[in-house]
Amino acid sequence: MTAHHPRSASLRFGANYVPSAGWFYSWLDFSSDAARRDFADLAGAGLDHVRVFPIWPWIQPNRTLIRERGIENLLALIDAAAEFGLSVAVDLLQGHLSSFDFLPSWVLTWHRRSLFTDPAVREGIAEYVSRLTHAVATRDNVFAVTLGNEVNNLWPDSPTTPEASTRWAAELIDVARAAAPRLLVLHSLYDAAWYDPAHPFHPADAAGLGDLTTVHSWVFNGVSAIDGPLGPATTTHADYLVELAAAAAADPERPVWLQEVGAPRPDIEVGDAAPFTRRMLDTVAQNPALWGVTWWCSHDLDRGLADFPEREYDLGLFTVEHEAKPAAKELAAFIGEQRAGRTVPASRPALVCDVDPGTQPERRAELAPGGAFHAEWVRLRQTGPLAIVTAARAADPGHLAARGIDTLLKPV
Amino acid sequence: MTAHHPRSASLRFGANYVPSAGWFYSWLDFSSDAARRDFADLAGAGLDHVRVFPIWPWIQPNRTLIRERGIENLLALIDAAAEFGLSVAVDLLQGHLSSFDFLPSWVLTWHRRSLFTDPAVREGIAEYVSRLTHAVATRDNVFAVTLGNEVNNLWPDSPTTPEASTRWAAELIDVARAAAPRLLVLHSLYDAAWYDPAHPFHPADAAGLGDLTTVHSWVFNGVSAIDGPLGPATTTHADYLVELAAAAAADPERPVWLQEVGAPRPDIEVGDAAPFTRRMLDTVAQNPALWGVTWWCSHDLDRGLADFPEREYDLGLFTVEHEAKPAAKELAAFIGEQRAGRTVPASRPALVCDVDPGTQPERRAELAPGGAFHAEWVRLRQTGPLAIVTAARAADPGHLAARGIDTLLKPV
Repeated sequence: MTAHHPRSASLRFGANYVPSAGWFYSWLDFSSDAARRDFADLAGAGLDHVRVFPIWPWIQPNRTLIRERGIENLLALIDAAAEFGLSVAVDLLQGHLSSFDFLPSWVLTWHRRSLFTDPAVREGIAEYVSRLTHAVATRDNVFAVTLGNEVNNLWPDSPTTPEASTRWAAELIDVARAAAPRLLVLHSLYDAAWYDPAHPFHPADAAGLGDLTTVHSWVFNGVSAIDGPLGPATTTHADYLVELAAAAAADPERPVWLQEVGAPRPDIEVGDAAPFTRRMLDTVAQNPALWGVTWWCSHDLDRGLADFPEREYDLGLFTVEHEAKPAAKELAAFIGEQRAGRTVPASRPALVCDVDPGTQPERRAELAPGGAFHAEWVRLRQTGPLAIVTAARAADPGHLAARGIDTLLKPV
Repeated sequence: MTAHHPRSASLRFGANYVPSAGWFYSWLDFSSDAARRDFADLAGAGLDHVRVFPIWPWIQPNRTLIRERGIENLLALIDAAAEFGLSVAVDLLQGHLSSFDFLPSWVLTWHRRSLFTDPAVREGIAEYVSRLTHAVATRDNVFAVTLGNEVNNLWPDSPTTPEASTRWAAELIDVARAAAPRLLVLHSLYDAAWYDPAHPFHPADAAGLGDLTTVHSWVFNGVSAIDGPLGPATTTHADYLVELAAAAAADPERPVWLQEVGAPRPDIEVGDAAPFTRRMLDTVAQNPALWGVTWWCSHDLDRGLADFPEREYDLGLFTVEHEAKPAAKELAAFIGEQRAGRTVPASRPALVCDVDPGTQPERRAELAPGGAFHAEWVRLRQTGPLAIVTAARAADPGHLAARGIDTLLKPV
């Protein structure tokens, strides 16, 4: 399984690819040339990868119909990325993107069935996962598939239970691995999985299923209300989530991918985007568990498109006219500095956490931003890198050594 | 408004166009050549028109984005029909087709809004209706637009009230008329509008909005359970609905289009399809209000496509291999006979109906198949053409004369 433990001395940097023209609707009028123009922006900023998002119902409009041309367009996008030296992670089941759910008619209204629990729907999704994974694995620059973007946003519209959510993801990960043994296979959840005690997707899924843990750090989840835009809670939240993910994993070597992070307005206004980006990156890059950072997103959203949450329009590294924005310039500068070599402290202290997110999902609220544990971690993090370790694993010297933990601190 | 009263001496015959390859999913991989092959079948059977169904969310994936290529594909389909001498009626808002609802992400889940009552959604739909109507009116062989196929199937998923349903349709009909004054503009509802007293779409909408009344006669609604497949209730149901529609209209000259009729299994098995078709057509063609008959549907459904109700797979006039089925041969023969001229009795009796469907929607159940009024009408219809007239209009000699009613019969 070494191939599945891609911890390395150098961090990966990329962008979640949002087409500058026509958002993801552009799949319906796919143009390799438009993608090339966008990828030129990203390669120019020094990024090494993109995360891309096919739209599920347009590729699988009927449960037993997977459109060849839909797959061909996805492969053409991947090939265009290769021309710019970009490797590609493919999210399969969209599913959820920027507040919109794309769902096929075969799970809607008169055919309403849960994506997570209906056997026929799961069979259809498994076929989709298998076919797409097999197809994208034919391209050397593809390194990962993720089951889908933040699939927990598809609940509550699709009912599920914690057990059903786990089984669903575990089965599909097996399907993807069978289709493409060489790829990383990943699960993706937004952070309610880490913080909401009633949420039917558990930290154990995030930290145990697939080949590495992905986290999505969005400061509008509550941290920016604490001290944003440049306060310590706000700028360390990405590092906090990576640490929580590392603490929840049984495997101390399991990498964590900061698969989404961005500078959303109005939490972080334009003038604060560059310093936020710098502080956030400086902090999280010291985390030995970190595999890479993928910015959300590559390009702004045309304001001619309606109904998006206001924050979604300005999240790009680049404008729709391909101009680099302040976060892009700061990210590019940071990437340049990292080329000289990543500096991770040889060891660091850890704050012992009374809650094990992997085994005590009912206690997740105790880990959420604003709580006592988070506040204490943020306070101590200001003096240097700080791990999180569960009380049980704090007694395991092998675990501590593997994670570079030299001192145990208890919350007051 | 003469152009909007297309009553004529000769009946129109057509088919609801269901592509033989890939059902309506084929819009995502549109091929004019595939459509031509299908249209050759239909023209060969003597049909003069097709009713076609673009898929709304694929043309308008965002509320403010209407895809040019989506419209171009629709125009290409219309042009292909013209090559075979087929005129075209375009249904705009699909919406509902064969149990599947096609809905854009901007009305689903996190953006859940009723199509019928949300102001922003209505604005988006109005723009869609306007743009498509304007575009299709550039083609001489287009004669009508219908707002959408059986839009009342989009309820209850989209909540509505009778008042909202009426306002919604009336507004959109105005939008379409403004976009293309030369076209017939139509509303389409499945027959719960005629029979279900609680249904929030009223007979007055069907019989009052738009330029003619459309009815969809499906024997699985209850009539085939009475005496199907070849019994009088089953074979006269199309005529009954046309008569109800004529009785409900304030305008005695308003035509009625039997916009959908078919021979669904298992209600009508293969061996009964031809005699059912013959008896149904013989009966309804005598109705002076009838504008035309449009079979559902042109082509069978590939059994490789999943999740359709069983009956939907075999409704075609032609198989997916382009073979004419028994109903097609009977329909073609009937069309040939009609070319010699339509024979409508100079006058006929009418059964007086105590319920006015236009003004008493709460009493619709009294008109439904299986009720006393329907049973009496079916019994009397066996001796010859029989109109339906409301008690109020039975006292209006001008109305009776305009509809060719010479005698009034009261139910016992």
